[in-house]
Amino acid sequence: MAVLCKPAIEVPEYIITNEETLELAQRLHGDHPQIDLVLRLIEHTGVQKRHLIQPIEKVLQHPGFDARSITYEQQTKARVPAVVRRALDQAQLEPQQIDLIIYVSCTGFMMPPPTAWLIGEMGFRPQTRQMPIAQLGCAAGGAAVNRAHDFCRAYPEANVLIVACEFCSLCYQPTDLGVGSLLSNGLFGDGIAAVAVRGHGGTGVRLERNGSYIIPDTEDWISYAVRSTGFHFQLDKRVPGTMEPLAPALSDVAEEHQWNAGKMDFYIIHAGGPRILDDLSRFLDVPPEAFRFSRATLTEYGNIASAVVLDALGRMFDEASALDGHRGLTAGFGPGITAEISLGTWTTDSD
Amino acid sequence: MAVLCKPAIEVPEYIITNEETLELAQRLHGDHPQIDLVLRLIEHTGVQKRHLIQPIEKVLQHPGFDARSITYEQQTKARVPAVVRRALDQAQLEPQQIDLIIYVSCTGFMMPPPTAWLIGEMGFRPQTRQMPIAQLGCAAGGAAVNRAHDFCRAYPEANVLIVACEFCSLCYQPTDLGVGSLLSNGLFGDGIAAVAVRGHGGTGVRLERNGSYIIPDTEDWISYAVRSTGFHFQLDKRVPGTMEPLAPALSDVAEEHQWNAGKMDFYIIHAGGPRILDDLSRFLDVPPEAFRFSRATLTEYGNIASAVVLDALGRMFDEASALDGHRGLTAGFGPGITAEISLGTWTTDSD
Repeated sequence: MAVLCKPAIEVPEYIITNEETLELAQRLHGDHPQIDLVLRLIEHTGVQKRHLIQPIEKVLQHPGFDARSITYEQQTKARVPAVVRRALDQAQLEPQQIDLIIYVSCTGFMMPPPTAWLIGEMGFRPQTRQMPIAQLGCAAGGAAVNRAHDFCRAYPEANVLIVACEFCSLCYQPTDLGVGSLLSNGLFGDGIAAVAVRGHGGTGVRLERNGSYIIPDTEDWISYAVRSTGFHFQLDKRVPGTMEPLAPALSDVAEEHQWNAGKMDFYIIHAGGPRILDDLSRFLDVPPEAFRFSRATLTEYGNIASAVVLDALGRMFDEASALDGHRGLTAGFGPGITAEISLGTWTTDSD
Repeated sequence: MAVLCKPAIEVPEYIITNEETLELAQRLHGDHPQIDLVLRLIEHTGVQKRHLIQPIEKVLQHPGFDARSITYEQQTKARVPAVVRRALDQAQLEPQQIDLIIYVSCTGFMMPPPTAWLIGEMGFRPQTRQMPIAQLGCAAGGAAVNRAHDFCRAYPEANVLIVACEFCSLCYQPTDLGVGSLLSNGLFGDGIAAVAVRGHGGTGVRLERNGSYIIPDTEDWISYAVRSTGFHFQLDKRVPGTMEPLAPALSDVAEEHQWNAGKMDFYIIHAGGPRILDDLSRFLDVPPEAFRFSRATLTEYGNIASAVVLDALGRMFDEASALDGHRGLTAGFGPGITAEISLGTWTTDSD
């Protein structure tokens, strides 16, 4: 049985508080016709601070897509191995025991993917499979867990490493002045997460069932325009309302498993923004407190894209409240509009 | 048992012959210090013609990355559904019967991935899983087959759709004047392939085992520089020599299955270039004729990246020479340097 072990998380050293973000928005966009709305939206995110790979002054200077691509690669190489090492240690695995690396990152692009470098750098076997996913955005964290689960179903002896590396600040676009863009500038943060899924043994979430759901005709609600200046994130104002169609999809997956999505012992939910969490707790009829791990991620790091669900999971490990047999639901949300849903049971030293 | 059914292939309507390519190279780069070498390399590719999504005059005019990204999306939407429809028909499947779509394409970038649009457009179920892969280059065709195989191992009732959509001409960079770039300009073509992998039933290659191999420290041998002008393909002159380290990796996967990589009944090999095929037949000690499907792809379409292996497989179906029980090896090669290897047995109307 595949067990999702304790994730390792790293957020970079440059911090911007929400007060600083609000001051900055006021300073840069004080004459924007909707500045009051923007400031209100940023205040309401519930984000207290975010972590960035560079000082904010540097983030604000777009050096061109060529330079950003180089920075993305340099920062990846500088920061990812330590997080991977920690995730492997926590799962009591060596690189040689990993059969598949799922690497998700939507905030930069490399071909070959970072896995090609990582395999040599960290001593993974040359036979390690690579599954790089760049196009599922914030949903990719959930997708990675689900594809790792599938792989362990196919090969019960296998172990999988997941890496979610998001440098959202490298997608800052100073010329994008829509309300959705200005809000995003105050919402997204940088972060790296890694976690192992063990085929045998391990303490964590025993993965039991997974599912996906895409809301038809919403592919332009969250999207990139791919331009000479890089990826331009486009966020439609209908996105915060997507829990109404997605909550039933979560319930359906739970029902297929004879579980009730409203009666889980724990929830690991993508913290896209505060309304996502508020709405989902309402539609699933669970107390807001049930999403405390996700709220803590949002408060302390902002939306760190595909890494959110792994960070929230890490907080559950830290709380040490889960007991053997506790049932949980994980859900990542992202462009598509897509939900990646997983059901699992807490297990200690399984085999 | 997962069966890789008959692929559907489509190449676009604008044709450039190798004579025209040579004339063009002479006209554009007649004063290049290594023009004789470039012309000789292009002559030796064995490519007779290639198919392009736009007239060559238009391909040569780089309209900027913004415009290219729009063209990539428009061409995808205009051309992919018909190929998918044909692949499903050939596998006797309806969109509603597909559980996972693996979409591989390294010659453009969309987020959300084209699958998000395709699911609504063609009536796939909202529960269809999406696996978009943009970073494995030419190896992605083999990787897609292997991940489809894994998924059917995990869920024996499942059916998977693979789409490989490559518009290599949208990566033409007029300012790249290295020998590798000029050769690539004469080697790569555009093409779309789609194929279903059925969990039950179907005629084709019953997938039995797969493996990956990456040659350490070669990640800069085939790579993209990601710039304001788009993806810049960088091809190192050591790439044609990579069959020496990769042939043993193919043999190892075969041996694990108690098969002999030199004694297969059929071979579906990525036709990266003529030397790849020549060397591999020499290192595996098989007659050049064994790679006739791949050679035909190279001759008629050029290197169509991740779609090559599916096109070569289609040619085997057309030849109708495979008999039940025939054993075969499929291998995709690409950036990393990575090989994606698959072993399978021809089966008619399996169940």
